[in-house]
Formats: sequence, C-alpha cells, structure tokens
Amino acid sequence: MTEDAKMVNWIAGGVTAAAGFMAAGVAAGVKYEGRKDMALVYSEAPCVAAGVFTSNVVKAAPVLWDQEVVDSGRDVHAVIVNSGIANACTGKQGFACCRETAAAAAEALGICEDSVLVASTGVIGMQIPMDKIKAGVGLLAGAKADSLQAGADAAHAIMTTDTVSKEAAVTVEIGGQTVTVGGMCKGSGMIHPNMCTMLAFVTTDVRITKELLQEAVRRDVQDTFNMISVDGDTSTNDTLLVLANGQAGNPLIAEKGEDYDTFCRALHEIHQTLAKKIAGDGEGATALFEAKVIHAANREDARLLARSVICSSLTKAAIFGHDANWGRILCALGYSGAVFDPEKVELHFESRAGKMLIYRDGQAVDYSEAEATKLLSEPEVTVIADMKMGEATATAWGCDLSYDYVKINADYRS
Amino acid sequence: MTEDAKMVNWIAGGVTAAAGFMAAGVAAGVKYEGRKDMALVYSEAPCVAAGVFTSNVVKAAPVLWDQEVVDSGRDVHAVIVNSGIANACTGKQGFACCRETAAAAAEALGICEDSVLVASTGVIGMQIPMDKIKAGVGLLAGAKADSLQAGADAAHAIMTTDTVSKEAAVTVEIGGQTVTVGGMCKGSGMIHPNMCTMLAFVTTDVRITKELLQEAVRRDVQDTFNMISVDGDTSTNDTLLVLANGQAGNPLIAEKGEDYDTFCRALHEIHQTLAKKIAGDGEGATALFEAKVIHAANREDARLLARSVICSSLTKAAIFGHDANWGRILCALGYSGAVFDPEKVELHFESRAGKMLIYRDGQAVDYSEAEATKLLSEPEVTVIADMKMGEATATAWGCDLSYDYVKINADYRS
Repeated sequence: MTEDAKMVNWIAGGVTAAAGFMAAGVAAGVKYEGRKDMALVYSEAPCVAAGVFTSNVVKAAPVLWDQEVVDSGRDVHAVIVNSGIANACTGKQGFACCRETAAAAAEALGICEDSVLVASTGVIGMQIPMDKIKAGVGLLAGAKADSLQAGADAAHAIMTTDTVSKEAAVTVEIGGQTVTVGGMCKGSGMIHPNMCTMLAFVTTDVRITKELLQEAVRRDVQDTFNMISVDGDTSTNDTLLVLANGQAGNPLIAEKGEDYDTFCRALHEIHQTLAKKIAGDGEGATALFEAKVIHAANREDARLLARSVICSSLTKAAIFGHDANWGRILCALGYSGAVFDPEKVELHFESRAGKMLIYRDGQAVDYSEAEATKLLSEPEVTVIADMKMGEATATAWGCDLSYDYVKINADYRS
Repeated sequence: MTEDAKMVNWIAGGVTAAAGFMAAGVAAGVKYEGRKDMALVYSEAPCVAAGVFTSNVVKAAPVLWDQEVVDSGRDVHAVIVNSGIANACTGKQGFACCRETAAAAAEALGICEDSVLVASTGVIGMQIPMDKIKAGVGLLAGAKADSLQAGADAAHAIMTTDTVSKEAAVTVEIGGQTVTVGGMCKGSGMIHPNMCTMLAFVTTDVRITKELLQEAVRRDVQDTFNMISVDGDTSTNDTLLVLANGQAGNPLIAEKGEDYDTFCRALHEIHQTLAKKIAGDGEGATALFEAKVIHAANREDARLLARSVICSSLTKAAIFGHDANWGRILCALGYSGAVFDPEKVELHFESRAGKMLIYRDGQAVDYSEAEATKLLSEPEVTVIADMKMGEATATAWGCDLSYDYVKINADYRS
C-alpha cells in the first residue's frame, strides 16, 4: 500500500459503490451457453467520461466507437460490455454492430444512442450475433440494480480466461463530502503495458470537469495499467473508461488543487489495485511478480527497467520454478534500453517470507539458495533493483510463466 | 533458399570446411561430467577477425575480452569456447579468467595470448573453474584436427539446451579460386534479435581485409541473426566471430566489387542457415515459425513487423496448438510500431502442406479451419503478411511456445 493509501478508505464493492450507479451481469449466450457474458454499467444522472484506449494500430470496433463518444464530450449514461466476441478485425460490419448495440441500449434505458459506450473482449475476427446482443441488452435493462451484488454480477460477466473477478472501491473526503471511486476490470492474456491494457471500468460520484477527469486518468495510467504485463501482447481492445456522475455533491473540481489531488489519490489506488489484480491473475499464473526499481537515473529509465524485468520470459519461468536466477534479471535490466553500470547494481528478493540481498559489486553475494527458494515460493514476490544512479523509482507488475499459460493459449479457440 | 543461394555450392561440414582450419571438442567437466563442453577453432595461418556482440548493457567477460582483441586489429589464431558457465556477472575475476584462458591456449598452441578469442555460454553468475579450463585447453590442443569430424565435435561441444548441433558450409568461386565459408553456432534460449543473439563461429579461407570483413558481417546480421527470436531475451553473451585466414589464395578483396559481393552471398547463406537452425531449435520448440512481410512501406517497418509476429507469445502458443489464430498475428503487426491500414493487409499461411489465404479486406475469408490446422501441423510454418504499402520485404524466424519451454526454464539451474 502506498503513502497515498493512508488518505483513502477502502470499502466493499466495485462499479456500484459510487452514488447513483447501477449495474447488471447476465448470460446472453453470445458465444458460450450458461455463463454470464454481458454487463451493464448505468447512471441515470449524466456522467462526464474519460477514456484511454489501446495503442495498437489494429483497433477493435468498440474502441473506435468509444473514442468518438469520449472525444465528443457528450454526456454518457451507460456502458454495454460483452465478453464472448472481441468484435476486432470485423470491418465495417463490426462498427455497425456497435451502433446497433448502443441503439438497443438507448431504447431499453430511455437514453440517447450516443450516450452509450460499448466494449468487447473475447475471440478476434468473429462477427457479433446481434440478435443475442439485443436480447441481452433487454435482460440487462431489466436486471439493473444499485446493489453490491449487481456490481459483482457485472464484474463476473466481463471475465474471459480470468480465474477471479476483479473489483475495488474507496472513499475520500472532498469539500466536506464523501466521494466514492469504484471499478472493475478483466484481463488475463494479451496483456502488455502500452496505453492501457485490459477492459477496466471505473465509476465515481465526484463532481469534476471532463477535461480534468481525462487528464487525471491519462496521467495515472502511466504508473498503473501501463506498468503491467502478462505476455507482451498489446491487445486490440484495451479500454479504460471512467465515468463521473457528480452525485457526491462536492464543489465542482474545475482546477488543480487540493480537491483534485485528493481525487487523483483515490483514482490511483483503484487503478493500481485493479492493475495488480490483472497481473496476479495472468493466464496460468501462480504468482504475482513485482519489479521495483529504485535510484534510477530518471523516471523513464526506471519504468523501462522495471517493465523489462517483468516481461522477461526466462525470468518469469524462473519465478514459476521458485529459482533465484538473478542472472536473468540482470540480463533483462541490461537489454531494457536504459544505461547503467552493472557493477553498481544491487538486487534483493522480497516476499512475505523475508528479504534477501542477492547481487552486489558485479557478482552474487554468498546467499542460501534454499532460503531464496523458500522466499520465492510465496504467492507475491518482489525483486528490488537498486541502480545507484539517481532518485527515480518505478514499479511494474507481472506474473510467472507456467505450463498453463501455454495450455490456455494453444487451444483458446477450440 | 534465396536467389543468392543459386550462386553458392552447399558442402558438408562446419568450421573445418575452409582450408587451414582445425577444430576440437572435448569433455572438460566445467559444470557437468561426461559431456563435451569445450571447443577449439584454430588456424595456423593468421586470420583477420570480425565480430558482433550483444547489445546488452550487461556484457559477459569474454564479450569484453573479444571486443578488445577484435578492435585491436591484431591477427587471430584461435577461439576457445566453454559451454558450462557463461562467465557473465562475474566482475573483475571473470575478466581475469579470460586472460588466463587465452594464456593457457597460447602456451599449448605456441601462439600469442592476444591472438586468442574466448567465448562462454551456460549459467550466469558462477565463476569459471580455471583448473578445469586449463586442463581442457590441453586436451583441445592435443585433439585438434582439420577433419569434418573435428568440426562436428566442436559443434557438439558448444551446445547447452540445444537438441541438435548446428553447422553449415558453402563454397563460391572468387578470382578463379574456390573459397569456402563454414560455421557452427549454438543457441536455444535467451535468444532475441538485437545485435546478434547466440554464439556463432564462422571460418573462411577467403583473402579479405579486416575492414571489409567487419563491414560484411555487420551488415549481414541485420537480416539474419538479428531476425530470429526464441524468447525475447537478449543474452549477455551473444557473440558472432568470423575468422578469415586467406588460404584460398584468391586475389585480396580490398574494395567492394564483384568479388566482395560473391563473398557476401556465401556469408549470408551461412549466417541465414545457422540463424534458422537456432530458431527452429528454440527451447521446447516443435516447429520453425517464419514470418515473411512483403510490400511494407520501408525496410525498417518490414523488419519491425516480421519480428513482432515471431515474438508474440500468444501467436507462438497458437502455432504450438496448430491453431490458425490469425487475429493474434494481426494484433502483433498492430503493436509492432509500424503504421499501416489493417483493412488493406492480406494474411496467408504456408507450409509444405500448401498455402492458404486467411484474411483480406479487414476480415477473415471463408477458409477451412481443418485445412489450416493440417497446414500448421508441419515442422516449418510460414505466415505471409502483405502490407500493400510499398516494396520493402523482411523475414524473421522464431518457434512455437510449448510446455517444454517452461519446463526447461523453470528448473534450468537445478
């Protein structure tokens, strides 16, 4: 937990934690029978919306749709998600499906078509079965509720290869009012730090201008969602949407200052928590693998170094094997693109089982392999790389590379 | 086989194919008992030497040693390799071991210490057992021979997790003389395109200046060794050394022209063949996976696109599963860094079993999954991406991602 975390209160829930938000998750049979595969997030009060999207040149149709809606600055009321079919590489027909989905939601909810955001995840290249989506939208409209259970249903409905649903919620005090920020996300494979790397939906009842909301989101993803990787593959569908409906009644945040900073802290905690949940639930993962770089020459180097370590296949396989193969970590630092002196670097491993110095002055110290293996057998392990160059710090999160990653991805479509 | 290949004659052998080169491979017990783990390449006639080395900031001691020797422009007579311990992250002691190894070889072979190149591969972070290395050097000096078998012994002795040894040799006619280029390499894990990504040793009897040899090598690795990847990890030890002893008796190649071009063609065939052998023998690999990009906007884009596809973990896992998951290929093209129009791209799969169009006009064509799976079940599979942007072409080679990659790397040190 960061320093900032002390200023926020953790509460139960996800997208329905903030005032005025409803949600639902239903089984619409989009690709598989008998599992929840469509979700709704809804606010009767109009929301300002911020979003960051995949940097992949190949963008899924709903990414293009949402970019239009978010860029337009129009009020937003709803998000419709399906987790069966990604609606990526589907040409003009795919984009038309987004419009039809929004139109169906608009009719069912009594709102404007262009106030509906759309998101998809699942198989690339298949067309969306619109009849099932339309029926699903009807079910969602009927099922929507502001309960924690409704938020949990939505969080379940957006899962694909995820093994657990992912929610988080916090409150902060702003201008004498309690402001809530809550969110849910999914993501397990095709996860790599570039722009933003998953489906994530955050709701808040803060009163804030669209411009400041977008700036807060864009800045914060650099240190949260952009610092995770499961497999180095930047998806065609990555989407983070943040909706703020103003129901907390705080004085409108229209400029930077104490209120803005407080909101940013709450947003950061939610983003970081959701991002770590994605990394820890990476496809086939048995451990959350954290790389903390300290005393780097500058911030960009710190980020490069931390990400390089958690992206290294060899390091990830060693973590799976509980093997303190620090040479691979030093190797990954070495090809990160950042310049440093290998003779100066210090490496530590850390987990609930303790903390160990492994490497200093250009070579391994005399550590116990047995103790290192014990330390690395915990479900969350950290490597700390002290670069001895400057004052910059960055943390990245990934997971180990296991047999199950291969299994999941060798026959995902069958 | 490329167009250039028509001008060269393939022959049996490796580093002893060229006139005046001897080799040996012996079991010195550097890390494991009972397997060949030290190799010698030797020419009584002095050689000009060219080398390219890892771009990793963390460079193994022998890389630093070899850079000094190659940069000095001094004649070279021998290369000593051990495949037990990488001698990386070993500080000043590691560099001293290189000097001691060279000194031992100089004494055993009756040559100068600074005419001996040194290379290592194996475990990072352990110190070299100098007593075993010195004994091994003695065995190598006694065993050296110019036979094909001696070259094959050396190729075996440099293997680590490789499943097969890797040799190639060709001849070309230059100035009325037969010039031979032969080589061997090892590499299976920690393989990623950046500078040059393995241990590779090429010998030739061509008469060429050191400057032109270095230029020929540096240029050619861009399209050969730098276009392969097994796991995205750029090693601390990557080394390509090319020794030319002039014994073919051709007129000295001292400027660019027909003779230089002919030599470059022969060198290219050896580099490409060795590089593909490394990719196809990637740790745990069941197939060589080739990505051919055609009609890219420019050469750099073509390389980025081809490498992005063969580096994608999701694509590699799909190839392992014989799954025509073209969406992952399009996704990998999309995050490569090159700009293109996804609606224009065409994707084909090709192998000995045939060739199939899969994707065109922004969506999949109506192809047979069963036929695609059959095509992808061959030991060498190619994806062809037609970008419809320009005239540039590039090919990259990788392998599939299998359970065995994880198995090999989860417990490599134990």
